Amino acid sequence: MKKFFQIIKKDKASMARTGIITTPHGKVETPVFMVVGTKATVKAIGPDDLKSIGAQIVLANTYHLHLAPGERLIRDKFGGMRGFMGWDGPMITDSGGFQVFSLGFGMEHNIGKMGNIFPEESRKKKKDNVEQLEKFAKIDEKGVTFKSPIDGKTDRLTPEKSIRIQEDLGADIILAFDECTSPLHDHEYTKKALLRTHRWAKECIRAKKNNDQSLFGIIQGGAFEDLRKMSAEFFAKQDFRGYAIGGSLGKSKHEMHRILDWTIPLLPEEKPIHLLGIGAVEDIFEAVERGIDMFDCISPTRLARSGYLLVPPSEGGKKENKYRINIKNTVNRTSTRTIDKTCDCYTCRNFSRAYLRHLCTSDELLYHRLGSIHNLRFLMRLMKDIREAIKKDKFQELKKKWVC
Amino acid sequence: MKKFFQIIKKDKASMARTGIITTPHGKVETPVFMVVGTKATVKAIGPDDLKSIGAQIVLANTYHLHLAPGERLIRDKFGGMRGFMGWDGPMITDSGGFQVFSLGFGMEHNIGKMGNIFPEESRKKKKDNVEQLEKFAKIDEKGVTFKSPIDGKTDRLTPEKSIRIQEDLGADIILAFDECTSPLHDHEYTKKALLRTHRWAKECIRAKKNNDQSLFGIIQGGAFEDLRKMSAEFFAKQDFRGYAIGGSLGKSKHEMHRILDWTIPLLPEEKPIHLLGIGAVEDIFEAVERGIDMFDCISPTRLARSGYLLVPPSEGGKKENKYRINIKNTVNRTSTRTIDKTCDCYTCRNFSRAYLRHLCTSDELLYHRLGSIHNLRFLMRLMKDIREAIKKDKFQELKKKWVC
Repeated sequence: MKKFFQIIKKDKASMARTGIITTPHGKVETPVFMVVGTKATVKAIGPDDLKSIGAQIVLANTYHLHLAPGERLIRDKFGGMRGFMGWDGPMITDSGGFQVFSLGFGMEHNIGKMGNIFPEESRKKKKDNVEQLEKFAKIDEKGVTFKSPIDGKTDRLTPEKSIRIQEDLGADIILAFDECTSPLHDHEYTKKALLRTHRWAKECIRAKKNNDQSLFGIIQGGAFEDLRKMSAEFFAKQDFRGYAIGGSLGKSKHEMHRILDWTIPLLPEEKPIHLLGIGAVEDIFEAVERGIDMFDCISPTRLARSGYLLVPPSEGGKKENKYRINIKNTVNRTSTRTIDKTCDCYTCRNFSRAYLRHLCTSDELLYHRLGSIHNLRFLMRLMKDIREAIKKDKFQELKKKWVC
Repeated sequence: MKKFFQIIKKDKASMARTGIITTPHGKVETPVFMVVGTKATVKAIGPDDLKSIGAQIVLANTYHLHLAPGERLIRDKFGGMRGFMGWDGPMITDSGGFQVFSLGFGMEHNIGKMGNIFPEESRKKKKDNVEQLEKFAKIDEKGVTFKSPIDGKTDRLTPEKSIRIQEDLGADIILAFDECTSPLHDHEYTKKALLRTHRWAKECIRAKKNNDQSLFGIIQGGAFEDLRKMSAEFFAKQDFRGYAIGGSLGKSKHEMHRILDWTIPLLPEEKPIHLLGIGAVEDIFEAVERGIDMFDCISPTRLARSGYLLVPPSEGGKKENKYRINIKNTVNRTSTRTIDKTCDCYTCRNFSRAYLRHLCTSDELLYHRLGSIHNLRFLMRLMKDIREAIKKDKFQELKKKWVC
């Protein structure tokens, strides 16, 4: 097998780097934003659209696909997710850990990974929900028992089972099963969970059979410096092809940066690092600067569906407006301009803001496709610009153009 | 201007014919199924998909586009619907009459054009609704006053205004403003409405200014033989480039056939005839056989969204199952086969029934696009087969293959 990760160029002024991940189904240039296809589909758009926006790799969710249609069907009838969903490029699956612990309630009761995104009131609500969470998904030393939200049946995930499912799904990169703690968990519980995650990580390595798949370990430890460092040091010594940084990333962007600063220098430089679930423009810049190679986030497609379309600084996008316009705004009613003059996506090549606003306010299904194509293409172009900038020693310049 | 309608070949055994309509934006081979883009979008699919399925002409709705975003915006900012929606081929708009009279309540309260599609119970409900209808949209000799379902404001359509709006929208074929009566209206009322429709038809001819647009008259008269014949005789003498047959088409398919038999022989052979709102396979065959050249119907995309996908006889499609499968059926859960082995659409070239079922039962947006692409392509292929069959004097053979 060819070298899994090759660093092409390192930034002189920071830990940013650009490289190539080689998978059995194609190469992935890093830093990369991986589009999320939770249930074996990127919401509202097909594999043809993925090609046209330049998507390099698709992330699918082990938990969701295990529930429906089931990994056995996908393996036995379609030889894996690619055959099932008609995508022939590289893929990655998460371990299912994050979803088992926090999805369902997470979405429903406002529990998320980032403490800072919730207002105080909903944070209080969340405290109650931690108990609910523990009732709903019961964690023991061997794994997690949970109820399927589809049929209410009791189901169970263990490190070995997570790997089996991910082998059946057949992604190129798979993640070790972890316990994703919430920002409300204290140091004591977070440490207990972390040690369990480390034991599980070793079990995942033992369980893994398919050498074509590259297993990543997930660094946990919440917002606690000692635990994050402990976790990074532990994983640095294990035989993983890459790492992911997961769990609670603190209560502010500043805390997230510190978590990256604590962990990344402790990891072997030659392995790629994935920051789980992050996709905001300024976060991408800050994380790339600190050595992150891979991102995934549902936000571009979710934002699109809510009417938020991403624009670069040249079109008025900035940190303060989160690089987005609200297409539903009245100002767009008569606008013949495209979302983004500089964008080459199908949507920007063919449709005006007025038309997109009409589709969006009329609840037309086509809107979701067109909005999602644009927002994903925006991320693809941003990442390409970042890679080019690193190659030309102009990363700081590019960052200043976007973030300042 | 080139001849608007040219008949290429007539069937020997029936009134079926195949021809070419020439518009300023391209040719349309008939018999044609026109895809419906009510609000300047064919639901769930873009202009790129329309090209790929081989759509020849798109029908948009005057009433809906008048309400939002408004014909003036479309004209002043985009030079018409094509520029607005990114479709560069031929287009047709209806007059808005059908929607003013029956949509809103029609959909909501079960009033439709085809008396036979409603069970007895809902027919009773409809009787009450006729009153509601007359309260909601007030008809006088000059036009119709109605309330906008968007902002509740009082609005008005007259023959002249309908033509003005359709000129602003800029379709190649436009329809005269008519009063569309319901199957519950008696002979007396239907006759009164018909005479009004005839007066309005003449007003439309007078109001029309743009010679690039071809105006069609709409033949009404409900299920009454004398009125339908009176209407056909009236329209045959007027200066229209084609005709549409609208209104209540009776309580059974048999009645619909009789209405076509009464009217079409009275119309000039050299002009194309559009049967409004019909799109079921067997209806298409029966109508083509009686001389119909153009069809439009929302059913292919609506059926798709509900899980019904169209299949030809070779895949088990027949009159009894309405040429459709329900993709949600459990039998499709593990099916690796495509919807239709003979189909060349994007969906059938790339996706299995199992995957489509997964998307549909998971409420994934992509399902709507893929299902709609297939159902529309099914209609495009059916119409092409019909045209080829007429050219080769094999229409009856083809009909037998499908309908018997």
